[in-house]
Amino acid sequence: MSDTTGRVTGLDLPHHDGSELYVSDVAPRLGDTVSVWVRVPRETPLDRVHARVVHDAEPHFVPLRVDRARSDAAETWWRGEIVVHNPTTSYRFILAGGPTRYAWLNAAGVHRRDVPDTGDFRLVGHDSPPPAWAREAVVYQVFPDRFARSRRAVRRSAMPEWAIPAAWDDPVFPRKTESDEIGHQLYGGDLDGVTEHLDHVEELGADVVYLTPVFPGESNHRYDAATFAAVDPVLGGDAALRRLTDAAHARGMKVMGDFTTNHTGVTHEWFRAAEASTSAPERDFYFWLGRKRYVSWLGVKTLPKLDWSSTELRHRVLDDPQGVVRKWLGPDGGLDGWRVDVANMTGRQAGQDLNHEVMRLLRDAVADADPQALLVGEHTNDYTGDVDGDGWHGVMNYAGFGKPMWTWLCDPEDAPDFLGQPVLVPRLGGEAVVETIREFTSHLPWTSLVHSFNLVGSHDTTRIRSLVGADSRLVDVAAGLLMTFPGIPMLTYGDEIGMEGTFGEDGRRTMQWSGKGWDRRLFEVYRSLIALRKRSRALTHGGLRWVHAEEDALVYLREAAGQSALVHVARAEHEPIVLDAARLPGIGRGRASYGDSVRVRGDRVTLTADGPGVGVRVWSTSAQGATGGATRRGKGRRSR
Amino acid sequence: MSDTTGRVTGLDLPHHDGSELYVSDVAPRLGDTVSVWVRVPRETPLDRVHARVVHDAEPHFVPLRVDRARSDAAETWWRGEIVVHNPTTSYRFILAGGPTRYAWLNAAGVHRRDVPDTGDFRLVGHDSPPPAWAREAVVYQVFPDRFARSRRAVRRSAMPEWAIPAAWDDPVFPRKTESDEIGHQLYGGDLDGVTEHLDHVEELGADVVYLTPVFPGESNHRYDAATFAAVDPVLGGDAALRRLTDAAHARGMKVMGDFTTNHTGVTHEWFRAAEASTSAPERDFYFWLGRKRYVSWLGVKTLPKLDWSSTELRHRVLDDPQGVVRKWLGPDGGLDGWRVDVANMTGRQAGQDLNHEVMRLLRDAVADADPQALLVGEHTNDYTGDVDGDGWHGVMNYAGFGKPMWTWLCDPEDAPDFLGQPVLVPRLGGEAVVETIREFTSHLPWTSLVHSFNLVGSHDTTRIRSLVGADSRLVDVAAGLLMTFPGIPMLTYGDEIGMEGTFGEDGRRTMQWSGKGWDRRLFEVYRSLIALRKRSRALTHGGLRWVHAEEDALVYLREAAGQSALVHVARAEHEPIVLDAARLPGIGRGRASYGDSVRVRGDRVTLTADGPGVGVRVWSTSAQGATGGATRRGKGRRSR
Repeated sequence: MSDTTGRVTGLDLPHHDGSELYVSDVAPRLGDTVSVWVRVPRETPLDRVHARVVHDAEPHFVPLRVDRARSDAAETWWRGEIVVHNPTTSYRFILAGGPTRYAWLNAAGVHRRDVPDTGDFRLVGHDSPPPAWAREAVVYQVFPDRFARSRRAVRRSAMPEWAIPAAWDDPVFPRKTESDEIGHQLYGGDLDGVTEHLDHVEELGADVVYLTPVFPGESNHRYDAATFAAVDPVLGGDAALRRLTDAAHARGMKVMGDFTTNHTGVTHEWFRAAEASTSAPERDFYFWLGRKRYVSWLGVKTLPKLDWSSTELRHRVLDDPQGVVRKWLGPDGGLDGWRVDVANMTGRQAGQDLNHEVMRLLRDAVADADPQALLVGEHTNDYTGDVDGDGWHGVMNYAGFGKPMWTWLCDPEDAPDFLGQPVLVPRLGGEAVVETIREFTSHLPWTSLVHSFNLVGSHDTTRIRSLVGADSRLVDVAAGLLMTFPGIPMLTYGDEIGMEGTFGEDGRRTMQWSGKGWDRRLFEVYRSLIALRKRSRALTHGGLRWVHAEEDALVYLREAAGQSALVHVARAEHEPIVLDAARLPGIGRGRASYGDSVRVRGDRVTLTADGPGVGVRVWSTSAQGATGGATRRGKGRRSR
Repeated sequence: MSDTTGRVTGLDLPHHDGSELYVSDVAPRLGDTVSVWVRVPRETPLDRVHARVVHDAEPHFVPLRVDRARSDAAETWWRGEIVVHNPTTSYRFILAGGPTRYAWLNAAGVHRRDVPDTGDFRLVGHDSPPPAWAREAVVYQVFPDRFARSRRAVRRSAMPEWAIPAAWDDPVFPRKTESDEIGHQLYGGDLDGVTEHLDHVEELGADVVYLTPVFPGESNHRYDAATFAAVDPVLGGDAALRRLTDAAHARGMKVMGDFTTNHTGVTHEWFRAAEASTSAPERDFYFWLGRKRYVSWLGVKTLPKLDWSSTELRHRVLDDPQGVVRKWLGPDGGLDGWRVDVANMTGRQAGQDLNHEVMRLLRDAVADADPQALLVGEHTNDYTGDVDGDGWHGVMNYAGFGKPMWTWLCDPEDAPDFLGQPVLVPRLGGEAVVETIREFTSHLPWTSLVHSFNLVGSHDTTRIRSLVGADSRLVDVAAGLLMTFPGIPMLTYGDEIGMEGTFGEDGRRTMQWSGKGWDRRLFEVYRSLIALRKRSRALTHGGLRWVHAEEDALVYLREAAGQSALVHVARAEHEPIVLDAARLPGIGRGRASYGDSVRVRGDRVTLTADGPGVGVRVWSTSAQGATGGATRRGKGRRSR
């Protein structure tokens, strides 16, 4: 019944995205003029193409011209100029051909009727763009209590009073345990343990260690900070963090921290002061419902919510050189960025909504403290409107990557729970998966998408190995998707060896350094795919064109200046998919960079699968777009 | 290829909307608990229904229970309770039935995969809800220079110096005329002319006269105000406005004004002062690019843009009892509300975005000056995110009503231009029209939708009579849609007599009170449809369920507490549409309230059309929902 095309896949569709092939400057400044290109297959010739550009919430139209230098027998490229008038300037294209032809092209697809602007492309002209290193990063999430114990680690007898000490081999408490008991089970992993095992991370190929909180609290997860001023002595204190960041930097690796802007722990020094006296300067850091009653995160009493209308709170968090944002960043602090917990709820409480203001201030503070730091916000659900490129550089991309991938890869016999949603996640076909990804990711600027953490699980969810059921090759598929998609791949410690876990807490098992239970085949899969990503500009900087989607297979192109990659992922055996090699110029010169499912013979590209698997073919192209994003990239925005 | 149902029509779909049948309080306060209902046809029985409610940007789930009092053999009604925690609290439903069933229901439809929150339902708990009268209003837009000249009207010889005086019968300048000449053509209509013709408006049945600007400027449209402190003497001055509002109120009618928050005229007293001296208090009301250069609306030099970061500007517009917002409202001012010009651009300029702050302050100022005043913002394009119920009560609904209706009703031989869009508006089938309306309107809270002006044209566009081509019965269809849709119908003076105009300025012809060229049949059509709307609670307060859509026909239900209406509109002859009368309980008791295309015989409802036309059947229902919105409505929110 749809009068939009409904189609989001196919080499015969006009295409544009925010990557360097289509945008002359992927990190412009406010006021800059940026060239944009639309490629149009010859079978759908157009009379005219205009960009509809929104300035100050009012659209205007800019005609595009045919770019002969880029056009060939197969495609016409149209080029136009857009002024980045607002920090986030949105645009789409209107395609006209013949009297009845009327179509819009935006990041959500091609539409033969009017559609809202939510799926429009966006150029972000922000003073502090994300750091260049992030585009090529692979993130390894470490939950410090469970990753490794060094020789310096605290003994069970020396653990804090609140803790229920566990031996490294003990199982995590089962699901029905009282939540405060679950949170108190302490294994005593420490930061020197992480330092001692950087070899493992380096061998895998990941180059960013993202640590869940390291500040002391009264839980193993430490999301209930008692202070932001010192690293938990149980983890080895400030010195251990310094040893870890120094060791990581010596290997060319980065380390990211994690802190909560939404709440503190009830034992936080600020909360203690606020609770003790209504005249304490910290009193208005929190929302009081009475002398002793206060607003807390989802009603969890140990997590009092922060009130960002407090000027003093803003000063302590954002401005103070010894405050949490600045103290731990840069050469003095050691960390290379922050992941912000409960970013979505921060600054939002009933009639008060300071979320965007706070995220912008936080971005400014981070950029000021360390222009090379990355800032990623947690958003477990729809992030529409909250990641417009002016606050968080990116998000935890559950909505536009993780959850849709779950619907494709989950065990049909054992549907997973997603963060308490009362109906289990359904298993869907490839078309629905692509539509879901396309729709959610069209609500982000491209720059925010590529600076978001793609993930198929985290310390909060079922592990990917448990999610997929019996066949571990489905984890290969998940890894393949992670390493070939636009966005920063994030895996959770142990994913690479097939660590299991049927729900969040169950996934926080200890890493068994004896090698017991390691799936070494899987490690090699991750290692190879990470290595492939690292050496491929197409995979790290390319755009995304969906070529084909069917029940059990997805096919897409990543295309950067000078290099293209065709990716084929299958969740099950499927009939061969045949593509016209003429639509993929140069593919014959390429090689099977991963797997052997993508075969080129004469004018046909054939994709086959006899079960779950990944195939990637990479090839060089003419330097199309090299005068655009490619050269600018080399120069770097900050040097201008 | 879609895995969403794709369907937005059908009596077999689960349904909820923001109207009184489904929401116990359509104007709750922050913190209130509101009951919500979902109706589910018996053929798709569900195991469980949960509301997913978003508080502080984090979703949580609330189980619904079967409401036996409302359920019957044909439908199960589920009921749950939602806390209005935020001023705009969004929610949707998850529908679970059997192991593979997983669907979301939101205002955009039923989805079998995850979709972003942009289409979610929204409850608005705002301190100053829209006035009750607005729900039953029909708005008549008057362009003062062209509506009528009273005996007091200025003579041609007494017209301002800038004017190019025109005789009442002169044609408007053609399209290619220099725009300043077009704007200077002055016919000399005045407000006493409007007063003298209130009989006409009253006979038609419209009860709100909305006047485009009445402040003096140097143009016939007066969107270039020279002051907000006085009515243009050419229109009769303040006294003429007082005579008009008094006369209208005596008839039980309202009068709305129009002012521009985005810019003033270059002759405005503020701009003159600002231009004369950089130390003038008005200097920072505008954006200066140099001593004399300034930012103006779309580069039009006569319209300097206002800078809302100025505290003094805010004071003059919003707080000053003699400022534009307050001076003209309430018993002292005479006006019953404001339409705000260029609402979308207001407060937005490059790196500055104060739009939401300004619209909220404006809402507060309006509510403070007159709690019974209505505030409607101009938005000619996508209004997503700008009308969340906390600012403008509603918008000019071009995106979710006017433009989609154009795509259905426009002359296939002569496609219209829409506000300068470089590709003419296409003609589409009914399915695409419904999908477009559904998608755009799902981005508004229900309360904002029903307080928006639905329109099929305005002083800025082609006239509906010219748009549809030869067959004037297509105007009947447009009028039928206007009068049977959720939202406030707005027509432009002369639409009701078939006044023509092939573009905006051409539509601003003078009203010929001689009756020359009047289509009296059309006047009767408008009069009857307005009368039908006025006496039908279903049409003014009902929800909206799409029953059927096909190329040339649309069928929908409007259902309120105690009354339902089935609406059938056809743009051309079509095969009979047959509905099951059992799905429309009580329809047999109804009567053909307009047209005779809806016929009930036994268990069949048959809808026929041999050409463009409208059929409406209205009937009484049991008092379903009467304990909900219906009683609350009677009481009124303010009296609690």
